Amino acid sequence: MAGEELLLPTTTNSKGRGADKEEEAEEEEEEDQVVNPWEVSAKDGGRIDYDKLVDKFGCQRLDPALVRRVERLTNRPAHAFLRRGVFFAHRDFNEILDLYERGEKFYLYTGRGPSSEALHLGHLVPFMFTKYLQDAFKVPLVIQLTDDEKCMWKNLSVEESKRLARENAKDIIACGFDITRTFIFSDFSYVGGAFYENMVKVAKCVTFNKVVGIFGFTPEDHIGKISFPPVQAVPSFPSSFPHLFTGKDNLRCLIPCAIDQDPYFRMTRDVAPRIGYQKPSLIESIFFPALQGETGKMSASDPNSAIYVTDSSKDIKNKVNKYAFSGGQDSIENHRKYGANLEVDIPFKYLSFFLDDDDELEHIRKEYGAGRMLTGEVKKRLIEILSEMVERHRKARAAVTDEMVDTFMAVRPLPRMFG
Amino acid sequence: MAGEELLLPTTTNSKGRGADKEEEAEEEEEEDQVVNPWEVSAKDGGRIDYDKLVDKFGCQRLDPALVRRVERLTNRPAHAFLRRGVFFAHRDFNEILDLYERGEKFYLYTGRGPSSEALHLGHLVPFMFTKYLQDAFKVPLVIQLTDDEKCMWKNLSVEESKRLARENAKDIIACGFDITRTFIFSDFSYVGGAFYENMVKVAKCVTFNKVVGIFGFTPEDHIGKISFPPVQAVPSFPSSFPHLFTGKDNLRCLIPCAIDQDPYFRMTRDVAPRIGYQKPSLIESIFFPALQGETGKMSASDPNSAIYVTDSSKDIKNKVNKYAFSGGQDSIENHRKYGANLEVDIPFKYLSFFLDDDDELEHIRKEYGAGRMLTGEVKKRLIEILSEMVERHRKARAAVTDEMVDTFMAVRPLPRMFG
Repeated sequence: MAGEELLLPTTTNSKGRGADKEEEAEEEEEEDQVVNPWEVSAKDGGRIDYDKLVDKFGCQRLDPALVRRVERLTNRPAHAFLRRGVFFAHRDFNEILDLYERGEKFYLYTGRGPSSEALHLGHLVPFMFTKYLQDAFKVPLVIQLTDDEKCMWKNLSVEESKRLARENAKDIIACGFDITRTFIFSDFSYVGGAFYENMVKVAKCVTFNKVVGIFGFTPEDHIGKISFPPVQAVPSFPSSFPHLFTGKDNLRCLIPCAIDQDPYFRMTRDVAPRIGYQKPSLIESIFFPALQGETGKMSASDPNSAIYVTDSSKDIKNKVNKYAFSGGQDSIENHRKYGANLEVDIPFKYLSFFLDDDDELEHIRKEYGAGRMLTGEVKKRLIEILSEMVERHRKARAAVTDEMVDTFMAVRPLPRMFG
Repeated sequence: MAGEELLLPTTTNSKGRGADKEEEAEEEEEEDQVVNPWEVSAKDGGRIDYDKLVDKFGCQRLDPALVRRVERLTNRPAHAFLRRGVFFAHRDFNEILDLYERGEKFYLYTGRGPSSEALHLGHLVPFMFTKYLQDAFKVPLVIQLTDDEKCMWKNLSVEESKRLARENAKDIIACGFDITRTFIFSDFSYVGGAFYENMVKVAKCVTFNKVVGIFGFTPEDHIGKISFPPVQAVPSFPSSFPHLFTGKDNLRCLIPCAIDQDPYFRMTRDVAPRIGYQKPSLIESIFFPALQGETGKMSASDPNSAIYVTDSSKDIKNKVNKYAFSGGQDSIENHRKYGANLEVDIPFKYLSFFLDDDDELEHIRKEYGAGRMLTGEVKKRLIEILSEMVERHRKARAAVTDEMVDTFMAVRPLPRMFG
């Protein structure tokens, strides 16, 4: 198994369990990096220090023993994202495994803010991983499309936000989710009833000062923003979905997401026991890097900072060759002598996400790192992998009919909820 | 017609139109009286100065000419609450009359926060007046029960708030609303869809600083409170009720309410044009005084401060005789000499609300004011009037079936929306 050092800097380990730190996190004043749902940036353009983040947020490192336990319980190899530390942190994921081992079930909750028509590869990461979890554990899944959030943050019209939500749903469905175990909803179409009741219950427990601490809101922010955190919180509670979980109010929830979403669920976990609910568990990923390198930002306004699922093979070839930041040396002589710097090399990082074959990846790591393989060769392999992946996605998306979207989004019981 | 001086102190008139003042109101710093949806109090326990309030809020005085115009247009005598200045202020009520005169229609919106099982007489005032408006103008009516608000402010459970909303709906229905023209809804059962979309549209336009200025929220308040104003705002917009008003997005809304609710609609009127909607019009009442006098407060924790619709005739007799603050003099001799002080006399004030016969009221005003009539006689007449009114309400409420409540609250088209 390729170790997590492939993606993550080696670490002096984090402080153990973080459950007790949920209250403290927002009071820290370290401003060397900012990670919240709307901003991910490190001081002086440096890289995100994930160890500090784990410490600050008070979550837990996902260690190799836990990965092996997942493999044993699901009787299948762990997903590459798990083997390689893409999903690197968690909150009480071990408790989810404990109950699964006892023969109990849980449900999955993930989501997306539908701010753009076309998804890029980074957007696919949580959905690819969630599909793996659904297949491996055979559990129901709810997917929230926060069209209300994007309407408020991006100043999109209600209609445009709803349209984007539906377009994004097609890309999500194309990831292969089981229609008999998956409920996709947009906030504009689903908020109400028990879901709204839970929003009110959560909102009652969180002061303005608290959301300022957690999310960095200011008094100049509009109250739509201040009202939003409960909307993202309540899918963590099964009673928000009476058509799915009536009488299963104690069902645990596992949330796969990128670690920038942690503040929402730190708040949720803080509130849950006060309103008689179980805390959701989390399994959290690092950020998918921009083509220009980990210190760059994938930006919707710069289409060359990311590979989109709508890119042609020619686009992909052009973007990788032209923009993918290389850790190779400036001359072939130096490269042969010093090897590539894999810590910063984007083609290799992308392969670590998407090249499933551990042996081949390890081979590239050794040969490229030792300078025996050149950047051009690695880029060529990456272009093959991404073109194939994007082409597969395009075909799958084209096969998603309006009827399928309607069914995934219908408020209905799930015929094969478990097993 | 008995003049409004019966209820309101004579005034040096208020500054004319207030429409332009909506923006300024919350920036004033006069702290001699506090009037907002959760607090009504004057400095040093004095009486509310309604002239100052009209000036501060920037609404308009409802003058006798406007009352006469209502009578002419509706071809019936104005309600006592209108003749006597109980409803004493407005915002653009004249525009509602303009369009009605042109043969156009509008709709009515009022509401109640269901915080207690039994309503008192003050609670009935807006509903009695709204029924008159519905009958006189033959227009549809939506009634909002803010069970979410009470759940958050009074710390009631969701279930208890919903139960109180339904109990209160029975009292409201007992006021005689036309089932073919009235939609009653509770927020917990109705928030969602187009209503929620409008909540988001409003919330986007209002900053935290703004709600601090309007409602006096603090950073220690929970975000449920901060999220609530849009919930009370959006019934002002017909598109929040697609089952009633599809294709009637330009329908004007008239809101009868006590003036403490003005801050919600000042905010609503400020936002409306920015999201492409019409501003709601308002017609606003003074506060119904406590038995102990206008400087006292009706308090749910002191059942002797108010007459409840559940009080027996014996209760009413006892409360009026024992607690109703008298403006009569301390001895019969002095009373005969100086007469009663009608400015502070609660039996007379209550009669001004509920004794419909103008001639009899005028007679009492003269005789009691001149000392020829004693407090005991006035109280006796009030006890008769209130006992009859409460008995009538009790019978009407007993006749309200669960099926009727279900129908009033059903999301349905209104069969006789207009005319």
